[in-house]
Amino acid sequence: MAYAHPDTSRSRDDLFDRIFHPQSVAVIGVSSRGGGFGSGILDSLEAIGFEGRLYAVNARGGRYKGRKLYESVLEIPDEVDFAVIAVPAELVPEVLEECRVKGVLASEILSSGFSETGTDEGKRLEERIAAISRTGIRVIGPNCFGVYCPKSGLTLLPGPDLSRQSGEVAFLSQSGGMAIDLANIGTWLGLRFSKVVSYGNGVDLRETELLDYLGSDPQTRVVGMYIEGVRDARAFLDVLTKVSAVKPVVVLKGGLSDAGARMVASHTGSLGGSRVLWEAALRQAGAVVVDDIWDLAYTLLAFSMLPLRDYRGVCVAGGGGALGVSAGDAAEREGLTLPAFDETVSDRILACLPRPGSSARNPVDAANPFVGPDAFDHVFRIAATDDRIDMHLLIQLLHHYRPLARSMGVSLLEMVPYRELARVLAAVRDDTGKPVVLVMPDYRQGTDSIDIGELIRHARQAFVEHGLPVFPDLSNALRATSRVSGYVRMLRARTSRP
Amino acid sequence: MAYAHPDTSRSRDDLFDRIFHPQSVAVIGVSSRGGGFGSGILDSLEAIGFEGRLYAVNARGGRYKGRKLYESVLEIPDEVDFAVIAVPAELVPEVLEECRVKGVLASEILSSGFSETGTDEGKRLEERIAAISRTGIRVIGPNCFGVYCPKSGLTLLPGPDLSRQSGEVAFLSQSGGMAIDLANIGTWLGLRFSKVVSYGNGVDLRETELLDYLGSDPQTRVVGMYIEGVRDARAFLDVLTKVSAVKPVVVLKGGLSDAGARMVASHTGSLGGSRVLWEAALRQAGAVVVDDIWDLAYTLLAFSMLPLRDYRGVCVAGGGGALGVSAGDAAEREGLTLPAFDETVSDRILACLPRPGSSARNPVDAANPFVGPDAFDHVFRIAATDDRIDMHLLIQLLHHYRPLARSMGVSLLEMVPYRELARVLAAVRDDTGKPVVLVMPDYRQGTDSIDIGELIRHARQAFVEHGLPVFPDLSNALRATSRVSGYVRMLRARTSRP
Repeated sequence: MAYAHPDTSRSRDDLFDRIFHPQSVAVIGVSSRGGGFGSGILDSLEAIGFEGRLYAVNARGGRYKGRKLYESVLEIPDEVDFAVIAVPAELVPEVLEECRVKGVLASEILSSGFSETGTDEGKRLEERIAAISRTGIRVIGPNCFGVYCPKSGLTLLPGPDLSRQSGEVAFLSQSGGMAIDLANIGTWLGLRFSKVVSYGNGVDLRETELLDYLGSDPQTRVVGMYIEGVRDARAFLDVLTKVSAVKPVVVLKGGLSDAGARMVASHTGSLGGSRVLWEAALRQAGAVVVDDIWDLAYTLLAFSMLPLRDYRGVCVAGGGGALGVSAGDAAEREGLTLPAFDETVSDRILACLPRPGSSARNPVDAANPFVGPDAFDHVFRIAATDDRIDMHLLIQLLHHYRPLARSMGVSLLEMVPYRELARVLAAVRDDTGKPVVLVMPDYRQGTDSIDIGELIRHARQAFVEHGLPVFPDLSNALRATSRVSGYVRMLRARTSRP
Repeated sequence: MAYAHPDTSRSRDDLFDRIFHPQSVAVIGVSSRGGGFGSGILDSLEAIGFEGRLYAVNARGGRYKGRKLYESVLEIPDEVDFAVIAVPAELVPEVLEECRVKGVLASEILSSGFSETGTDEGKRLEERIAAISRTGIRVIGPNCFGVYCPKSGLTLLPGPDLSRQSGEVAFLSQSGGMAIDLANIGTWLGLRFSKVVSYGNGVDLRETELLDYLGSDPQTRVVGMYIEGVRDARAFLDVLTKVSAVKPVVVLKGGLSDAGARMVASHTGSLGGSRVLWEAALRQAGAVVVDDIWDLAYTLLAFSMLPLRDYRGVCVAGGGGALGVSAGDAAEREGLTLPAFDETVSDRILACLPRPGSSARNPVDAANPFVGPDAFDHVFRIAATDDRIDMHLLIQLLHHYRPLARSMGVSLLEMVPYRELARVLAAVRDDTGKPVVLVMPDYRQGTDSIDIGELIRHARQAFVEHGLPVFPDLSNALRATSRVSGYVRMLRARTSRP
């Protein structure tokens, strides 16, 4: 793979560092009346608190929210590292050429109306962009939502609500919708991002080069990808193999069906490909293959919060017998086990739980849903003495607290000791060296249960702040965990090859 | 199968009619100080508005919330159809015997402390209950949450919030937790129940006899079951085969793993069994086999709101390209297809959508998420002219409305035209004869997005009130639909056998 680019004075890492942490950004196509992508992204950059210098451009000049609109990027009396281009498609080549002349290092083109339209005009415009890029400016897009980097405050198109908290999860997405959806999910699920790139039609920078960079990016510990088509499959699979050997790469491949492939063509102008071939090739390269956006999100959550280990035995605890039975079934489906405790361990656990009605062979089934932090503290510390237990999982059915809270005349948020539970479980994890995972099903999603929804959100936030991953149900939790095990086994199998 | 029972003067249907619609109920074990199962279920029966006459019993007499506590069921100056028993396990045989002497037709025993404890004492007590039952009183339980019948107002143990709306979904559950969880989910998901029975240890009435009754119950059009162990597998499979031939029976079998089976023993005192054998036998009998409680809930929703047909072709519409691509992939995974519209249909659809950015070959991808009821009205009516389309599916990403609502200074609930959309889509369904399904993903579940959660709940309620099923994501919607197709194909294969 060649990074042939005229600007050979900069190393690749320096280039990407300036893309993700530009000192100055010009947004081109900001309407003085507001509305449109240009004003939207400028508002978003201000709202999220972009750290560098911001300039706005509109060919007709004027002002937007008091800010001067330069008539051209060439008039900006400052160097510009990165340009955000949001002008109508037919004007993009001219604007991009001006950026190149200005010495702008790289740009993201949010505008659509290129090869994804399937028209000759769209394809021709895209070819012109590609040609200009080759003469000296890197391009992300067109037809994309751009770059999100919490550390510098670059953000995606509809991104005013995204978090400024940095983390170690990177995400590359051919689809802008998928990028913003995953960024939104990550905000509350606890995914903290290093870099997110929506690259759309990918006329210049796209899957392979970006993945290669992330493979050596010290801020990134796990990479997620949503790809529809790939430009050079051989080069991509080579890089995927290389990167998967040093950090997990979780891949959601869209467009594997006939209808999906048809859609890929109209969505980002790429070609899809056969399901069987792709899935085999991705697995062969060491990628963790997932099925949909939730699967992607939960898998990234597991990789970002669980140490890379080969998890096998899980201790499951909770209140409510059917969940206990289901736990065994779900674990087996995901290739995990619930090792049965011997009587000594089981009796010690039982001594911490209400009698009668509790059982403690694994799953550990407390007689009622109100068993508190102290009890589970003991339960998991005792369970951790069993060498077969690699991980703890606690199921919390918080809606059961409502009748109790009502009868005591206190609010649900005051009633439920979720903060204490988060502290206790984080200490269990740290002291035993075995991770703790939470499952909080939401069985009450009616218009009369907004309070329960609110409680679950606050509890999740408390757990996430302690680095404890929360899943909505057992299947998700166990599947995501088993993906971590699978990756570790893959690594081990590779390194033990002669 | 024999329904050998001394009270041969009553037909089976008459018996069950009196169980589900008792004219008088005695709750035995109501503490005058409140608290405990007895007071709990009495409160619940009053809260839900039980239609018959209610009596409360406590051996020490006294009053509870102004209501007289009879010292024994024998003192109640009225006939008693149904007894709810919630006294400590060791007192249950004596109380049950008094009920039999009183002429009580049937009872539910909520108390635990029987064979599920694994103790000799527990087993002995359970055998005594069985013996008393054989001399003239039907028993549901022990170790259960009882009967929920919206029409009469009988309700499950922690059931004050359950709905009084009747419907055609029945649910039999060995686990009380699973019964209450599904009843809770059903309330907002739109499952309307005819009868729900949590039968616990199932000393007398249990899976086989209850299923046989539901098979001929005209109020029940679809049956869900959660079973852990089965007493007489041969008899059960015979009845399952018979009932599956006239209405769908959706079965979640718990305890199919080693840990699950171990848990079954301590949970309801039954024996589980091998996964492979059970799954094959259930499918062979014509049951629809599901994986977990959500799968069960969504499958029951599809069966209760979609006509029984062999769905193959689906028209998927929404705003957001990646969802469109995913739709094709998800459909193929579930054995469904998104037939590509020919150019005439596609052009007509495109004419109703914003340009540029929309595409309309199927999936139909609107350029933005604000495309309204009118447009989708046209889209689906045009799509319905294609004979290959059996069903419509609309994806709504409601959180996109928030920035718009804020900038206009109106609340989200006022902003989003979900009521109008529900009316329009119900009319599309009625006029075209092809069902419409909604998918409303919730990508915003943070503490700062309570308003979006509230909007989704209200929108779901509006759709459900129009008989439109709502699923949280595409995979669930398409999987549940494909289960309906699978059942119809199974029926067809059976009837065409020589």
